[in-house]
Amino acid sequence: MTEHIEKIRDEMQTEGADAFLVTSNVNLYYSVGQVMMGYLYIPAEGAPVLFVRRPSGLAESLSGITLHYVRKPEQIIEIMAERGMPLPSRIMLEGDTLSHSEWLRYQAIFQSAQTLNGTSALQRARSIKTDTEIDRLRSSGKLHAAVYAKIPELYRPGMTDVELSIEIERELRLAGNLGLFRIFGQNMEIFMGSVLAGDNAAEPSPYDFAVGGKGVHPSLPVGANNSLLKSGMSVMVDMGGNFTGYITDMTRVYSIGKLAEKAYRAHNTALEIHDEIADMMRPGTVCEDIYNRALEIAKKNGLEDCFMGSRQQARFVGHGVGIEINELPVLCARMRTQLKKGMAIAIEPKFVIEGTGAVGIENTFVITENGNEKLTILEEKIVELN
Amino acid sequence: MTEHIEKIRDEMQTEGADAFLVTSNVNLYYSVGQVMMGYLYIPAEGAPVLFVRRPSGLAESLSGITLHYVRKPEQIIEIMAERGMPLPSRIMLEGDTLSHSEWLRYQAIFQSAQTLNGTSALQRARSIKTDTEIDRLRSSGKLHAAVYAKIPELYRPGMTDVELSIEIERELRLAGNLGLFRIFGQNMEIFMGSVLAGDNAAEPSPYDFAVGGKGVHPSLPVGANNSLLKSGMSVMVDMGGNFTGYITDMTRVYSIGKLAEKAYRAHNTALEIHDEIADMMRPGTVCEDIYNRALEIAKKNGLEDCFMGSRQQARFVGHGVGIEINELPVLCARMRTQLKKGMAIAIEPKFVIEGTGAVGIENTFVITENGNEKLTILEEKIVELN
Repeated sequence: MTEHIEKIRDEMQTEGADAFLVTSNVNLYYSVGQVMMGYLYIPAEGAPVLFVRRPSGLAESLSGITLHYVRKPEQIIEIMAERGMPLPSRIMLEGDTLSHSEWLRYQAIFQSAQTLNGTSALQRARSIKTDTEIDRLRSSGKLHAAVYAKIPELYRPGMTDVELSIEIERELRLAGNLGLFRIFGQNMEIFMGSVLAGDNAAEPSPYDFAVGGKGVHPSLPVGANNSLLKSGMSVMVDMGGNFTGYITDMTRVYSIGKLAEKAYRAHNTALEIHDEIADMMRPGTVCEDIYNRALEIAKKNGLEDCFMGSRQQARFVGHGVGIEINELPVLCARMRTQLKKGMAIAIEPKFVIEGTGAVGIENTFVITENGNEKLTILEEKIVELN
Repeated sequence: MTEHIEKIRDEMQTEGADAFLVTSNVNLYYSVGQVMMGYLYIPAEGAPVLFVRRPSGLAESLSGITLHYVRKPEQIIEIMAERGMPLPSRIMLEGDTLSHSEWLRYQAIFQSAQTLNGTSALQRARSIKTDTEIDRLRSSGKLHAAVYAKIPELYRPGMTDVELSIEIERELRLAGNLGLFRIFGQNMEIFMGSVLAGDNAAEPSPYDFAVGGKGVHPSLPVGANNSLLKSGMSVMVDMGGNFTGYITDMTRVYSIGKLAEKAYRAHNTALEIHDEIADMMRPGTVCEDIYNRALEIAKKNGLEDCFMGSRQQARFVGHGVGIEINELPVLCARMRTQLKKGMAIAIEPKFVIEGTGAVGIENTFVITENGNEKLTILEEKIVELN
């Protein structure tokens, strides 16, 4: 965890902050290895201190960080004074995650300091995974693929997309999936992932996922919509792989009987895009170059109108993954970030074919010294379900 | 939905606001009946207007509200000007839900107006359910109870708490549960609910639920912890009932073989508290009186040390439910709110007995004209699993 805190400090230095107060579950887990109701104070220099409200009964230090129990965050500065810690003059808070009212509360506590939005700094720190994080992603990827390998056994003729999804959810959970699907962005939400069958894949959704689906209820309009699985439909399975606190992202496509010719052609184009952009992924590659290359191959094959959706198209072809499903970097237009060793990225070229459904592929990779390593290894062709 | 918007307007009037910009999924669902990526502008007088980014393809009006597509929220005031709508002078935003950076963005858009935190106003509006909302809760409660009735069939000797949970999750999903468990509060999270067996029920958790549990991973330290279900253990099942966008809350306790005598005695005390406070629940009853009465009965039975937890005790005995699991009111000390017709409230007297586990009960009620109606009807004794 020390390594993680050092990364955060590097980003703090870049923006001239002399402290960071980390307060969200995701970033506390990143920083100290455990979700708690608490506040991690990271000074630019000197030892960080963890202030905890709950759970009770923790040891006096955690991951080498001294721990103080508090009833409320206002006690933080009293304890800092007792410890002889100077007050910050420029403190970062999680501005894209903290609610406005919480922001005001912390601002009042550190009233002598200027408050800065530290969300991007944390996201940049988290975008480069350490070896331990990569091991966790690798473990998630193996379990993720092992469950997907069972999907053909889970299918029974006469099932709906929701019923197939439920059997996959159960297998994921039995394999150790925590269920919780963490997403950055306040209005982003989904259950464990999506199973999109036939034309439901073309249904626009309010959420910023690659492909939507209508869902079964207006309170959660995304994913499976109780479609009966019928001959000629593609079934795209895109469930989260949160087995280790680190989520892999993986999509495979199945067919009920045979699909229209265009669907196989589009799937092959998706595989061509996948393989070609996977080849490009190494330290130094610029994110938008990857997106542009993907778009170019889709166009060359006359499939740009159904690339990443039909009625509503997503404008990216991949994204970082980690504790949350949508981390940095994003493979999209105008993203000039260069890939670096340790980034974990899911690429997901997909097409939506009206009358058939979604086809395509998604795998999670980590960027290595000279290239990348695929973490979600399984057959990539369309698998027919019987 | 008109009725919901009128309730919001009543609350706006109380606080002297002349507009509300509703932006969260939960409150858009409440206001217009559908989750979307969008912004509902409610003026104190005149017709509300819905500004939508996604999904594409919606009709020109929704629930009778005129709809405009926008690419970004900055277009809202341009469209308002075109429609001849006056700019607000005191606008409410969702200050406890909106991130600080989003708050600043909306504040810049409505720069001529004073911005007020409207979260409490929305929570108060939502705390009184309409007949349609009560019907949804009633439907959720029936499905919730029907799934719990199957729990004895799902148990197999040699199971772990996680395995039993997975089978219950599957039955909930097959019965139509949406899976998503909506909770108010940024750092509150859980998967579909919790199954707490034996001493895991005493493990403190960082989350503000009635009883915690260690969970299986430090990234989600709540609920089942892979305990093998063994003779003498109680198994408390507390899963969310989100079948209709409206969540019922319900807890039942099972035993593996027979439990220690103290556990049955504590369970009977929980039932006594439950029945007595259920009798008190009618329009006009003050929330803290209910909590105090529950505490009094626990004390009378010498069980205050293990009431609502042992090593870490929750300081409430019930809470509102609705679109989120933790709505207003809360049945806790110093809560002077009076119950009103239409409130939906879960009461959950529970005890944690070291060496056995958690016992107790939880049901969801709605407050009626003269009393209340129980929505989660099922055997309340401890059911032995074989």
